[in-house]
Amino acid sequence: MRTVTIHPAAITHNLHEVKRRAPQSKVLAMVKANAYGHGVSAVLPALAEADGIGVAILSEALEARSLGWDKTIGLIEGVFSEDDWHTAIKHDIGCVIHHQPQLDWALASAPPADSATRTVWLKYNTGMNRLGFDDTALISAATALHAAGYQLILTTHFANADVKAHPLNAKQIQRFTDMLAYLQTHISADIQGSLCNSAAIVSQPEHHFDWVRPGIMLYGGSPITEASAAELSLRPAMTFASQVIAIHTVKAGDAIGYSSLWTASVDTRVALISAGYGDGYPRVIDSEADVVIHGQTKAHCCPIRGRVAMDMMVIDIEAAGDDIRLGDTVTLWGDAPHVDTVASYAHTISYELLCRLSPRATRQIH
Amino acid sequence: MRTVTIHPAAITHNLHEVKRRAPQSKVLAMVKANAYGHGVSAVLPALAEADGIGVAILSEALEARSLGWDKTIGLIEGVFSEDDWHTAIKHDIGCVIHHQPQLDWALASAPPADSATRTVWLKYNTGMNRLGFDDTALISAATALHAAGYQLILTTHFANADVKAHPLNAKQIQRFTDMLAYLQTHISADIQGSLCNSAAIVSQPEHHFDWVRPGIMLYGGSPITEASAAELSLRPAMTFASQVIAIHTVKAGDAIGYSSLWTASVDTRVALISAGYGDGYPRVIDSEADVVIHGQTKAHCCPIRGRVAMDMMVIDIEAAGDDIRLGDTVTLWGDAPHVDTVASYAHTISYELLCRLSPRATRQIH
Repeated sequence: MRTVTIHPAAITHNLHEVKRRAPQSKVLAMVKANAYGHGVSAVLPALAEADGIGVAILSEALEARSLGWDKTIGLIEGVFSEDDWHTAIKHDIGCVIHHQPQLDWALASAPPADSATRTVWLKYNTGMNRLGFDDTALISAATALHAAGYQLILTTHFANADVKAHPLNAKQIQRFTDMLAYLQTHISADIQGSLCNSAAIVSQPEHHFDWVRPGIMLYGGSPITEASAAELSLRPAMTFASQVIAIHTVKAGDAIGYSSLWTASVDTRVALISAGYGDGYPRVIDSEADVVIHGQTKAHCCPIRGRVAMDMMVIDIEAAGDDIRLGDTVTLWGDAPHVDTVASYAHTISYELLCRLSPRATRQIH
Repeated sequence: MRTVTIHPAAITHNLHEVKRRAPQSKVLAMVKANAYGHGVSAVLPALAEADGIGVAILSEALEARSLGWDKTIGLIEGVFSEDDWHTAIKHDIGCVIHHQPQLDWALASAPPADSATRTVWLKYNTGMNRLGFDDTALISAATALHAAGYQLILTTHFANADVKAHPLNAKQIQRFTDMLAYLQTHISADIQGSLCNSAAIVSQPEHHFDWVRPGIMLYGGSPITEASAAELSLRPAMTFASQVIAIHTVKAGDAIGYSSLWTASVDTRVALISAGYGDGYPRVIDSEADVVIHGQTKAHCCPIRGRVAMDMMVIDIEAAGDDIRLGDTVTLWGDAPHVDTVASYAHTISYELLCRLSPRATRQIH
């Protein structure tokens, strides 16, 4: 048994936290990568109060439309071909334009005047050096798009927003602010701005501009290194759980599992649980990694021993006495341990764990 | 664009390699964890010549039955409840029995005489210390099951078969061989044995016994540290590919992506590709990690620069001159780079990369 339970009420709560922090801004809720692994169909109803959703690729946009999402959709990598541009127009999808071919397609085929695709998210490279136009090309693109009847949202992306004091943040903010002012003065006062991902929503409250783009915070993960999700009043939107399938005692001196990574120093009672990296739990973790087993009388925080395998892992339940029985529920991440904590065991970020869940677990909504 | 292409001909070839190495043994082809991420429905036709398939959990067994697999199914974690035991009987699923409750369920409710569930895979703990009975309990379980009319396959699992010279291997083989001889002498000469996973199929040819249980080698990954997949004549069964979605030049001194991990020492032409950890590519990789871009005239092995993001990554194409264009296909793993190589960049094994693919990529069979 392995289950992934999605909590829509937590997502709505987290959306309210975004709105509380950015009350003057519209919210583009990021649901790319299958809503960070939570499932688009499970999260869209919880995001009904968002002003729009953001997706990475066209197929994700079309899925959201097929699920009935009729408000703004922002396609953050834009289209990859001229054919895709026409598909975007057909489905009223607002596109990022970040390089010359996308600009050419937009200028060659303008959408109807009432189309949502008339709003373009024009990507400015302020220091991420990944997507976006540099200064001269951006001004030229904005001028041409405005002349062709497009409404523009200037957008950029932080490289280091998770570390508030990183010196690149101030530089990116300054470049963005200067460019937006230039475009509003020289092209159109109606040009809007969108700068902040989750991290910047929290740490750059004076720079929220017209649209904020929360991602991980909607799902209850902390976007910044300086504060936990709980300190930011964010609630985890997913519980990943399994079950005790066997209990036995490993004798002192015996090793457990692949590569005999852990050896019992004393006779040790262990529980097998039926989840592993084949479900999306990371295989390589620190020795302090733990799970929470919901025993007969209380919850126990218990360490993982040895190598996480494809379909199971071994938990040290010696400290729990007889309170843990066959069939007991095990939280891999959820309220505790928090997915941010599990990510730290694997030297990565919660985003990756959430996205890299395999389809094997049973999915439910609660 | 991100595609996962499964190659059934490679799987059949790899199955033939198993049979060539273990000509006297029956083959239980492991298709747990959605056939190591390849998709059960995609691989079953390629495994038609296997004698049976192995799955981790009951839902996987039922999926295989619903897809028309009518030969042996081995449930390697066994059932988790008495209800599941009855479901196993109903669908002719052969179960591992590795602890007392499973034994109790089997003894309380024997399947009909013609049921495939009458064959039990009795798990012996020879040193993995994860699942299975110790000596005394095993002999007692075998005696009781035989008396109740079950046919038995003694089975165990290696902890360190990937390292041929590991001293635990010889100990596990000795314990297994001794126990099988004891059971055949004292209980029934018909008791069979199953010892070898992929690694042991390759490195322990004298100990193949009645059933071998190949997993990773069916999918073209090397199971041992001493030889590559190519050296073992195994062909990769999956190609994970993406596409160049933008090309630009990063100026000397500028950093790329999240956390500004990589800084260009000279002006550097880079390609953005539309795949990332949201698709299952590992986020944390060594600096030598690379991809193969299929350019206009030839294939180029090009390094990944900066942090792999959720939906994209940046590739250094400076050495490829103008040969790489928008829309070019990029192999993340396949013939080259091999998934074993990518796994080494992430300090893990190919099994994990294959299993932790997300559902986002378009799936195809070729």
